[in-house]
This record gives sequence, structure tokens and C-alpha cells, in this order.
Amino acid sequence: MVQIKFWGRLSLAEETYRYQQLEQWLQQGISDGRWKVGDRLPSIREICAQQGLSKATVQHALQRLEAQGLLEVRPKAGHFVTLVPTATEPPRVTSQIDVPRPVNVSDLLLDIMGRSAAFDLLPELHAGDLPPGIIALNRSIGRALRRQRGADFQYYDKPAGDFALREQLGLLLAKRGWPATTDGLCITSGCQHALFLALMACCQRGDVVAVESPGFYGVLQLLEQLGLQVMEIPTSTATGMDMEALEEALGRWDIQACIVSPAFATPGGALMSDASRRRLMVLAEEYDLAVIEDDIYAESGFSQVPDTLKALDDTDRVIHCSSFSKVLSRDLRLGWISGGRWHQRILHLKMVTQLASSRYLQQGVAEYMKDGELSAHLRRQRKLLRAQRDRLLASLQAWPVPVRVTAPQGGLAVWLELPATVDTLAAYRKALDAGVVITPGPLFSASGEYANCLRISFSHPWDERRIRALNQLPELLNLT
Amino acid sequence: MVQIKFWGRLSLAEETYRYQQLEQWLQQGISDGRWKVGDRLPSIREICAQQGLSKATVQHALQRLEAQGLLEVRPKAGHFVTLVPTATEPPRVTSQIDVPRPVNVSDLLLDIMGRSAAFDLLPELHAGDLPPGIIALNRSIGRALRRQRGADFQYYDKPAGDFALREQLGLLLAKRGWPATTDGLCITSGCQHALFLALMACCQRGDVVAVESPGFYGVLQLLEQLGLQVMEIPTSTATGMDMEALEEALGRWDIQACIVSPAFATPGGALMSDASRRRLMVLAEEYDLAVIEDDIYAESGFSQVPDTLKALDDTDRVIHCSSFSKVLSRDLRLGWISGGRWHQRILHLKMVTQLASSRYLQQGVAEYMKDGELSAHLRRQRKLLRAQRDRLLASLQAWPVPVRVTAPQGGLAVWLELPATVDTLAAYRKALDAGVVITPGPLFSASGEYANCLRISFSHPWDERRIRALNQLPELLNLT
Repeated sequence: MVQIKFWGRLSLAEETYRYQQLEQWLQQGISDGRWKVGDRLPSIREICAQQGLSKATVQHALQRLEAQGLLEVRPKAGHFVTLVPTATEPPRVTSQIDVPRPVNVSDLLLDIMGRSAAFDLLPELHAGDLPPGIIALNRSIGRALRRQRGADFQYYDKPAGDFALREQLGLLLAKRGWPATTDGLCITSGCQHALFLALMACCQRGDVVAVESPGFYGVLQLLEQLGLQVMEIPTSTATGMDMEALEEALGRWDIQACIVSPAFATPGGALMSDASRRRLMVLAEEYDLAVIEDDIYAESGFSQVPDTLKALDDTDRVIHCSSFSKVLSRDLRLGWISGGRWHQRILHLKMVTQLASSRYLQQGVAEYMKDGELSAHLRRQRKLLRAQRDRLLASLQAWPVPVRVTAPQGGLAVWLELPATVDTLAAYRKALDAGVVITPGPLFSASGEYANCLRISFSHPWDERRIRALNQLPELLNLT
Repeated sequence: MVQIKFWGRLSLAEETYRYQQLEQWLQQGISDGRWKVGDRLPSIREICAQQGLSKATVQHALQRLEAQGLLEVRPKAGHFVTLVPTATEPPRVTSQIDVPRPVNVSDLLLDIMGRSAAFDLLPELHAGDLPPGIIALNRSIGRALRRQRGADFQYYDKPAGDFALREQLGLLLAKRGWPATTDGLCITSGCQHALFLALMACCQRGDVVAVESPGFYGVLQLLEQLGLQVMEIPTSTATGMDMEALEEALGRWDIQACIVSPAFATPGGALMSDASRRRLMVLAEEYDLAVIEDDIYAESGFSQVPDTLKALDDTDRVIHCSSFSKVLSRDLRLGWISGGRWHQRILHLKMVTQLASSRYLQQGVAEYMKDGELSAHLRRQRKLLRAQRDRLLASLQAWPVPVRVTAPQGGLAVWLELPATVDTLAAYRKALDAGVVITPGPLFSASGEYANCLRISFSHPWDERRIRALNQLPELLNLT
């Protein structure tokens, strides 16, 4: 991160507001490459002094740029450039709602998931050393294993899971506006398992479920397997599900449940505003909706971890689902669910479909959290993810055609919109032949849309080989 | 185990076959208490010499007694008395088939399972040291954890699970008449999870599923949650599901699937004969039935581990389900499934409902198997279980009323039939107040039958406190 030394004086015209002029001037500076992705802008104090502007004016301009995704605030560090200048527009999404319909998931997704690959361009590349957070985690689990005594191995754990782990999760969630109780939490085998239990508990075969479009493909697969119908709601990859579109859909169709990912949703890392969240809860009440909150990316938030949607849930109609897979380890297979008014049924379903979770594993993770190791790991992880995102955005700037791309403040991926002629599904096979796995846009919808879109993850380090794979993409996508 | 020294000469009457006379005389000796449960009979050679009979005659008589469950053969050790003399009759079962109907599982079972208790009279008693097999297991898992390298933690395992573990399972199953391939196996979170995937794959809501009665309560719960109808088939607690009754049911109702536990089924430890197994496969073919084999107890077989039902499956209609929970550790949460013609759908369901299993855990167990530790543990475990069963059967002899009881050759429990006036459901609460958890007969059927029956497990050591709890049972059951 280089601090920019060059700093010219802003020429102020009388006919526009000063904050607008400052905003335009900063935008221009970013477009011209004066400040590049990852660069820090001068401090508010410096801008005030050099431009002769008030603190309020400078703050207002910076806030507007932040809202557009061009800048981001890092606590105690300042404002940083985030967005590719040639793509200040976020990718577009469908604006129309369709009719509810059954889901048919393509074999392509099965193929990609079978390669354990959806988040990596080079899934065969398990290189490098373990990060300290994972070494500490494994030690914690090892200690719990060695602590096993007596006939512990002869008993199944209770369906709700280990008390100490639920206690630690309660503490973690309390920081996010929701005083979750141990009784209200149930341990699962990951977030996908939690989403499955949630849908089993609140829906019947044939029911209609509203989902984000583009949105998480795992949800579409669940709907298919459970015989549920999908109602795709237009969703901004910057600000989440469109509440007007949801309201329209609720007015026209009998919708049973709605799955949202308020914090850093896949594929673009969208963050729902407080206003949107409140609107969702009002609609849920009005239309008697079950709201399934997929919270899996929340703890990755680079500068802030947003409150849970559950924090706004006065009537127990939010089912909160999450896991450690995205921010700690995908090999733990530990998640959790808090089922609101469906919690008893969910506990029952957990027991019937899986009996119990591994006790020593839960104890190891509980101790890891209690020792402060999880917080320390998350702090390191967020910095790492932000740097990896910046590296990706910077690389996209060099592409031969301008692309629209999201600049998420959390999560593990950006969403790209390419020229309308691009066919990412066709490119998938071509890329595979070159040893590269891409995640084509159509996977993120049941409608076949987003053929010219792509999700690219920044969850893995951009070492030389991954950079090479990334640089191959324009050619593989026929952009050259 | 005391070898009986007393040995009188058998008086042979001309009008019956010699083997029948020997059989009656041995039966009488057991009833009279000349040989007690756990005692070894004289060797075949000794009987031949003392009674002046041919080896074939003696062997024939012993085989008949073995088939009745009065004796059991232990390799290289001889014939041992197994059955309580006052209860040479196995418990009775329903002989009539009912109509298919939806399942409503009682809250009682949820209560018992919530106490993680179904196999222990004193579930709060996690006393004692870890057995060597579990210490070795935990070490193996610890080693796998420490071997984790690079970005392993950033990838989900493939849905089918770890290759090395499937390879080891293939070797284990090959000893049981079925050359299972790695491609045909999928790792699950235990046997209950496997049964769930099996039913999801081969049934639709409303379908009728034939089950053993009395049989495994976890299956009844699954049927309830999946909206399937149950057809309870009369099942001998000694020889398994009654094939005539199944055939009658198949002729009268449209049955989609049949769940059987051919080897040491709960609650009584029944073992299906080869003839029954073959008949089942013929019926399955004739009525186009999916056969779900619950194999979870098979490896506990005291003197032999029977072949899998899958070994007879020429047409890929058997779905084999099992896990390590009963013979190794209930805290592992590792099972497996081989789905026959439904295997692709099962893999898909595994992925959609749970994504993956923990890789390091599977690697640890695979190594444990490869090192021969599992075989060594099983050898010790079988001896232990047999001794614990003998201790239980001996204790039941001292009860104030005669009880009918099974004498299983494997599994973890016996099934008791008490006088018709006994109400084990009422006794459940009374026992609970005394700190003892019993498993009443009605849990093992959806029909409310078996009120005077009880499953008692011998999976835990009969230490002083458990013996005391066992000795309290006659009073808690109002038998005194």
C-alpha cells in the first residue's frame, strides 16, 4: 500500500457544490490512475488543509465515493481505492421477476463441485504452509482428542451439540446485535447442512421459495432435491436482494420462505443496507414468510462485521444458518443453525438425519474460540482477503476490454460482467483443457441467465501460478 | 468360564434317533442348571467317547442346539451355553400384517435419545479408562491432523469421501462376500445419515416402506420425517424378518422399499439365515423392491461375521448402509453407503445436504484400518461383548419371574418378553426417577405393540453400579 505523495490543488467552480467537485476530482484521479487500487488517499485533515475545504465537505464526498464502492474505510488507516476505474458501474442484474418453477440444476455444477473447485482457478494446487490459525486449530482439536476419557466414545452427543461450543458461538453472535442463547443454537455439519434442515423444517414439497438472483448455487440444488419451486428475485451484487421486486413477487405468488445472504453474499459480495433488512422483516411479517439467513460470509468483513439479520427478528421467523467453512477451515465440517419458531423441528430433523456431531471436534473448536485464537485468525484472515481482493481488482484493470466488477467489502469473490457476446459456459470446457477451473455466471441462477458473467474468487493467495492462470482468462474467454 | 466336570452316561432308548436323545439330554442338563450360561460343554471327542456315539451324531445334536440359540460355537474353544434355561423359547412377535400407515413417533423416544441413553441403563456414568483400540484411533486421527499441509483446509473433500478410506472399507467388505469398489462407496456422517440418503434416493413422499417389527426406532423416525408410510413385517428376534409375511404384504400392498438388518438386528440380535436372504432377493426382484441393508452390527459377530446381503445382489437393488458407531466409536460420526442403482443420486444428495466429510478424520481412520488396528480392536471388542452378554443373561436367570429372552450371537442388546401384565412404558418414568434409563418395547414399533417387552443392552461393562441398576429392574417393572 503506497501513500500517494502527489497532491494538486482542486479548482472549485461556483455552480456546483463543493463536495460534488471534490468527489468528481477524486473520481477523475482514480480513473486517470493517479491513485491505483489499494492506494491510500490523503487523510481528511490533509485534504481539508490542501483544498481549503471543511471537514464536513470532505467527509461527505468520501462517504459518497465509499457508497459507490470506489473507496473503502479501514479503521485507523484511512480511505483506500478499491474499484477498477474503468468499471465504476457494478454489474447489471435482471430487473424482472419470473414465475415460480421447479429447479433443474445442470450437470456442469456437479462437475465443478466434484472437482472441489468452485473457489479456485487451480484446484490441484494445494501448495504452501499451513497458516498459524490452522496450526492452532489442529492443536486444539488434537488436545480435545487426547482429553477423551472413559466411555465418551460410547455415547452419541446430544442433537443440539456441545454446550461449550454453543456458548462460544453465543458470545460471537452477541457482538453482532443478537444475544443468541445456547438453547437456541444447534450444531450442524456445515452451512449447507443447516440450510437443508431449515428448508426441511419450514417448507413442504411444491412450496415456493424466494432466492437471490444471481445467488448461491447450493441453494438451487437444495430446492431441486427437496422438490421446492424457485422464485428468483433480482438482486444487486452490491446491495443485495431488491426489496421492491420481492414485494411484487410476494403480492403475486404464494411464497413460503425467502433465503437471503445479507452480509457479503455470493457471487458478488453484496451487503444489504439496514433499510433493506428492515423492509425485509416488515414484508416477512406481512406475508407470513420464513426468512432463512445464510450468514456464512459475515465474519470475513474487511472493515466491519455487520449485525445479523436475526438481530431484527422480533417474531422468531428468521432461521440463522452459518459455518466455519469460509473463514476458518472447509475441512472442519462444523456449522450451526438457530431455527426461531422452527427450532424444535430442526433439532428433531438433525437427530433423525444424522443423530449427532463429533464431540471432541466441537470441544476442540470451542477451546480454540475461548483461547482467542479464532479472533486472532479472523483479524489476519480479513487483511489477507482484502489484499488478495485488491490484487485481483488490480489485475482486472489490465484486461483488454473493460469489465464491470463488484468491489466487495467482505466475502471471497467478485462478480464480473463481460461484454454480452461472451459465453462463459462455453469457456468452461476450454479453460478446463488449459487446467483452469472457472465458475460461469449461469451457475448462479436457475434461469440460464448471466451467460456473460463470471465469479472469480480471491480466497487463495495470488502466487505466480495463479496469477498466470488469471492472466490466461481473457484469452480463454475470447476477449482478446 | 468353568468347564463342567460332571458327566453322566446318556441312556439310549431305541424308539428315537440317537441325536434327538442326546439333544434332549443336553437341553435337560441346561434346564436343570448342570451347565450354566457361559459354561463350556465337553468336547465332541469327549462326548463321543463317553456316550459311545459317532462324531456325526454328536455334531448333529450340537448344531440343532446351536440353531435354537441354546449353544454357541467359539472357534478353537468349543460349545458354550448361551441361553437362560427357563426361557428356551425366544420372545414372541406379531404374526399378522397390518395396513400401511403414516408413522407418529412418540415424544418418549425423543426424550430417551435426547439423553444419549438408548444403550445404557446409567448414561451419566462415563467412567473408566479408554480401551487401547480407542487410544490408537485417536492417535491415528491426531497424526492425520498434524500431517495437514498447504491449503488442504481450504478445500472441501469430494462428495464420495476420502479414497484411502473407501479402499480400506472395500477390503473389509470383500471378506464378507462382496467385492465392494471404491467407486461404489460413499462416506457419510454415520449409518443414520446413510439410511436417510437411501430413503431420500429410492422413495417419494407417501411411498410404503416395509420394516422389521420389532425393529430399529431410528428408521421409524426417518419414515415419519420423510412422510413415508410404514408396513411392519413380523420379525423373529432370533431369525429376522418373516419372509412369508413379507411376501403376503408384497402381494397385498404396493411397497417401494424394504429395510432389513440381516446381521444381529436390533432389538434382539436376530441373524437372518442364508435361505431367508436368498428368498428376500427373489422377492425383491419379483416385486421390484429397493432393499436397504442396515449392516451396522455385523462386525460385532462373536464367532462369525456373516456375509453382507449385498453379496447376493446381482441386480444392484441393495443399498448397503453402515458405520463405525457400534463397533468402534459413536463419536467418530463416520459411516458409508453403497447405493447400487441409486448410487449417483445418493452422491448428489450427499453433496447437496452436506457437501463433504472431514478429510483428516477419514485419513486417520483409513490409516487405523491399514495398520491393522481396527481388526485388533474388533477381536478384543467381540470377546468383551460376548462376556458382557453372558453376564447379562446370567443375571436375568435370577429374576423372580421367568422371562423369554434372545441369546444373540452378535449385536449389543437382548430383547426380553415379560409377563403380559407388565407395562414397560409406565416403568420408564418410574425407572428414570431412580436414575435408570430403560428402553421400552413400544419404541421398536409404530403400532404400540410390545408393551411387555424391553431391550437391554450389554454394550457397557457390568461394573458394580450397572449391576445394581440391572438388579433394580424387576422391582421397577413391578415383577416382585
